[in-house]
Amino acid sequence: GTMALGEPRWPENLSLLKVVDDLLRCGICFDYFNIAMIIPQCSHNYCSLCIRKFLSYKTQCPTCCVAVTEPDLKNNRILDELVKNFNSARQQLFKFVLDSPPVSPST
Amino acid sequence: GTMALGEPRWPENLSLLKVVDDLLRCGICFDYFNIAMIIPQCSHNYCSLCIRKFLSYKTQCPTCCVAVTEPDLKNNRILDELVKNFNSARQQLFKFVLDSPPVSPST
Ligand SMILES: [Zn+2]
Ligand SMILES: [Zn+2]
Ligand SMILES: [Zn+2]
Ligand SMILES: [Zn+2]
Repeated sequence: GTMALGEPRWPENLSLLKVVDDLLRCGICFDYFNIAMIIPQCSHNYCSLCIRKFLSYKTQCPTCCVAVTEPDLKNNRILDELVKNFNSARQQLFKFVLDSPPVSPST
Repeated sequence: GTMALGEPRWPENLSLLKVVDDLLRCGICFDYFNIAMIIPQCSHNYCSLCIRKFLSYKTQCPTCCVAVTEPDLKNNRILDELVKNFNSARQQLFKFVLDSPPVSPST
């Protein structure tokens, strides 16, 4: 995947959703998972294409270095569903935040 | 797990995050995943305790009926991380929504 430049930043008061956003990104390409694959022996996840390219070069998990070969990889479909829906929700949320008048500090 | 009564509802304008919330819940107990386990052959996920109890009674996936035995189950740790952080984010978000003055309809 390619990281979209000019993605809106997470507002300060929604910083915890930024952590969720980070969890839904691949540690190889840093974009949202695209056909997420889990390595069952260590529970790490990557895009299908990213991890297959990596394994053709080195047969280990890029994060924890456990030995991995391509047949070990299994689809982690819930991550694809989460990416799709979280991405839509993010757009809805940013619109809501931009539409909200700023909160005046309590006195 | 036990479903907390009196959980705040998702506001209309954040309905898409409700879909994310639903994805992070176990199809057996309907609470957030508690030690999420993936069935690699079908990619369905359940709480560790929920699916182990189920398998002791019937050796199949409760959703798609594929044959499963306990050694097939693998940790899906990213779901535990997502549950933890999404739950905190939800509380931050509800606070933000409650603090925001209502948006006046554009005229
Ligand atoms: Zn990737
Ligand atoms: Zn690993
Ligand atoms: Zn459960
Ligand atoms: Zn299944």
